[in-house]
Amino acid sequence: METINSVEAIMVRIGKCKKVKLEAEANGQKSTAYPIFSVTDVRKHTTKEDGIWVTYKDGVYNITDFVDGHPGGDVIMMAAGNAIDPFWNLYAVHKQPQILKILETYRIGTLSDADAEGDSSETLDPYAGDPKRNPSFIINSEKPYNGEPPLPMLVENFITPTDVFYVRNHLPVPQIDVEDYTLEIGGIGLRETSLTLDDLKTKFPKVSVTAAIQCAGNRRADMTKVKPVKGLNWNGGAIGNAVWSGAPLIDVLKFCGLTDLSKIRHIQFEGLDMDVTNVSYGASIPVEKLFNPHCDVILAYEMNGEPLPLDHGFPLRVIVPGVVGARNVKWLGRIILSEEESSSHWQQNDYKGFSPSIDWDTVDFKSAAAIQELPVISAICVPTNESNVKLKDGKLVVQGYAWSGGGCKILRVDITADKGKMWYTADIVNQEDAAAGRCWSWVLWKAEIPIDKNLKQTEIWAKAVDSNYNVQPESFENIWNLRGVLANAYHKIKINIVQ
Amino acid sequence: METINSVEAIMVRIGKCKKVKLEAEANGQKSTAYPIFSVTDVRKHTTKEDGIWVTYKDGVYNITDFVDGHPGGDVIMMAAGNAIDPFWNLYAVHKQPQILKILETYRIGTLSDADAEGDSSETLDPYAGDPKRNPSFIINSEKPYNGEPPLPMLVENFITPTDVFYVRNHLPVPQIDVEDYTLEIGGIGLRETSLTLDDLKTKFPKVSVTAAIQCAGNRRADMTKVKPVKGLNWNGGAIGNAVWSGAPLIDVLKFCGLTDLSKIRHIQFEGLDMDVTNVSYGASIPVEKLFNPHCDVILAYEMNGEPLPLDHGFPLRVIVPGVVGARNVKWLGRIILSEEESSSHWQQNDYKGFSPSIDWDTVDFKSAAAIQELPVISAICVPTNESNVKLKDGKLVVQGYAWSGGGCKILRVDITADKGKMWYTADIVNQEDAAAGRCWSWVLWKAEIPIDKNLKQTEIWAKAVDSNYNVQPESFENIWNLRGVLANAYHKIKINIVQ
Repeated sequence: METINSVEAIMVRIGKCKKVKLEAEANGQKSTAYPIFSVTDVRKHTTKEDGIWVTYKDGVYNITDFVDGHPGGDVIMMAAGNAIDPFWNLYAVHKQPQILKILETYRIGTLSDADAEGDSSETLDPYAGDPKRNPSFIINSEKPYNGEPPLPMLVENFITPTDVFYVRNHLPVPQIDVEDYTLEIGGIGLRETSLTLDDLKTKFPKVSVTAAIQCAGNRRADMTKVKPVKGLNWNGGAIGNAVWSGAPLIDVLKFCGLTDLSKIRHIQFEGLDMDVTNVSYGASIPVEKLFNPHCDVILAYEMNGEPLPLDHGFPLRVIVPGVVGARNVKWLGRIILSEEESSSHWQQNDYKGFSPSIDWDTVDFKSAAAIQELPVISAICVPTNESNVKLKDGKLVVQGYAWSGGGCKILRVDITADKGKMWYTADIVNQEDAAAGRCWSWVLWKAEIPIDKNLKQTEIWAKAVDSNYNVQPESFENIWNLRGVLANAYHKIKINIVQ
Repeated sequence: METINSVEAIMVRIGKCKKVKLEAEANGQKSTAYPIFSVTDVRKHTTKEDGIWVTYKDGVYNITDFVDGHPGGDVIMMAAGNAIDPFWNLYAVHKQPQILKILETYRIGTLSDADAEGDSSETLDPYAGDPKRNPSFIINSEKPYNGEPPLPMLVENFITPTDVFYVRNHLPVPQIDVEDYTLEIGGIGLRETSLTLDDLKTKFPKVSVTAAIQCAGNRRADMTKVKPVKGLNWNGGAIGNAVWSGAPLIDVLKFCGLTDLSKIRHIQFEGLDMDVTNVSYGASIPVEKLFNPHCDVILAYEMNGEPLPLDHGFPLRVIVPGVVGARNVKWLGRIILSEEESSSHWQQNDYKGFSPSIDWDTVDFKSAAAIQELPVISAICVPTNESNVKLKDGKLVVQGYAWSGGGCKILRVDITADKGKMWYTADIVNQEDAAAGRCWSWVLWKAEIPIDKNLKQTEIWAKAVDSNYNVQPESFENIWNLRGVLANAYHKIKINIVQ
């Protein structure tokens, strides 16, 4: 699941569950004001009927009235009758004063001394092994780490340098010793097979695919302006374009005995990144992606000519070009051919699109399709929103990127400085010469557009058109969705014109 | 090229060439008021330098100042130094009083008696062999015939009955004797091969594909409301969903010797329908469509289980599912594997999309990509625009279709009766259970939406979302283009609510 980074959104969300007493005392501390409970007492309370109790540090809490309103969904039930400390270590966004105060409003007791002393979760930081990241990144979440480059940095290179490529982690980066690493492959019609990294490098051809990968939540920050959504506040930098190299997935599966395709519907991928209950990150793609050699699905062990870095899935990640980042599973541990989609939270109850009129009270995740291919999108990277710009000979230089999922080519990017009265077609500065339907790379574009010199402020809009002649929607009002995914409306920025 | 059906558009267009004298005398008649010219005189005037002359009946016209403004483009130059009568017989839309009056303003002479008597073009109607059509169709052009069913008729069947399927002809229906018919196949890497219809039926497997075919100009009538465009005024019925059966194109090409694919870039198709200069209708598709078996390209000799009818390409038509109707060439006569796209007018100088700011003075057809896959679209078929409706229990029943090109599935259709404040998700009534990326059929949908009973009028909007999560653009202002193609903005109708 995606972590919650908007405290305001949480406050709004749970407002209906319980009036929040922000004056509540500091949290989880020993307090003689409450009854004493043992861990055994707490463990008895795991249902709505018995009450749902959790502990945090020394505090005991009855969160029965809160669980339905938990912005993170049902996952909160994993802590029922137990300590929430390890979960909060995993999803560190919870550790904010406002949320701690909310928790305190549910306090009913204090853990007995013996049990409280047994809790050492505070000392374990599952993110201790995470790698160092680009210090210039905008950090949307520290733990798990989610960071993006500032937009101007993105358009400096057609192939995004590895350390400029956004990082979207759902869980701590797993520490994998490549000597011990194996990829497990199984499911319908396959011999259960273990392959080492060396097997993957030596038994199969090495192919390279240049492909943009984008988070489903890219540009969510723009959608949020219409109405709050749940999700990381990506600004537009949650996309990058890299050269991925590795073994064709179809070759690997044939090696494992794939012959009868008739019963297979989905290819499931499991990562080696795990939550505190040892549940792996997981996702799946429809089998047609695999059977169609034009889809270029590979098991990548290299990114931009170097071994995959830790943040991008070392030692192995599946690359499904044209498909949302969430299905390009990192730290790949297992592949399963199945009749079913991945049962993971991220496939079933996240990364789906809904009508603007669906809210958290009415949402039925089963009613929507898991996001696979992403729609056409563009962003203005230079200048940035709200910046001061100087014109040159009455013109403004505008630069950005555009991309579309499913291998669709970008045909055109249109720019306007007067809300659409006059559209200028940008020059496509970089574009791969790819076959029709296999345009996996983004394009970088540039336009020099005349601006009325008398203006002190104006808006610049960008929209892209892809080879299906699909175009971005004009605004966010009618594509708004509660998770803030698929935020592909026109990119609109405001600039101040200075002399 | 598409014929011009809007006289107003032509009048606007040529206004800048010459002020029109609508009081001019009746056209093409003998007149002693003008000098007498022979056909030989006329034939000398074929360039701007020498003046561009044409004849119509007995009249001689110097159209030098008009050719740049001809709404039909360069095609007018085919008549330079010659009679326009055969062209006007072909594109009968010209034979309207307003256009005849415009012509008369360019009159400079009268044909000599001897030459005038030799003209018998008036008696030849190239459309005399056209078949009978559905009398309930809305006719957008008689010659060539272009007709569509009324919208409510479209949603009566998931598989559109053949006689309800829109007809979009560019030229007269060719009269083909199946005993003499052969399909010629050649080009890079192939043996020149002729196949009879019987060969196609007996040498190759017969496969069926259910696919919607749509004209690039469908729903142009809606786009025209923003600003006039050039093209037939399709209302929303230029789409249909049929079962097409025939031979897989890839099998046929392999039979003709296809082995080396490396130099082939495009598959060109030529129809047996021809203009007066014996130029065939033509189009092409990128070779990737062919090489990818998941694209399901077939040479169809059946439509809905019966031999193709005359209007739909008897005896053979190529079906390229997910791709604009213009590339699904009817009356197929020849297939050519090539490094180049079709050089036809319809591939090069028509059926392309442009920015809203491009007009007929600035358009460069070479700058844009030929339309292939079409974007996501929907239409409300019941009720119809401006109709009177009665509510049932305060609710309105709304029905329509939705489709997306490139094999994308329709995920959702949203309906609003209050301009987006509340969106209702329609029920998908009919949808084929197709594999991901091979959803060639349309869907039919239905919604029952509550309407405020106190309203006397309201608007109903529909928008569809496809499996790439692309969505229709909100309005036509920013997707307007001079040819009025790709008119896929939200469908918005007005209704009157009666008690």
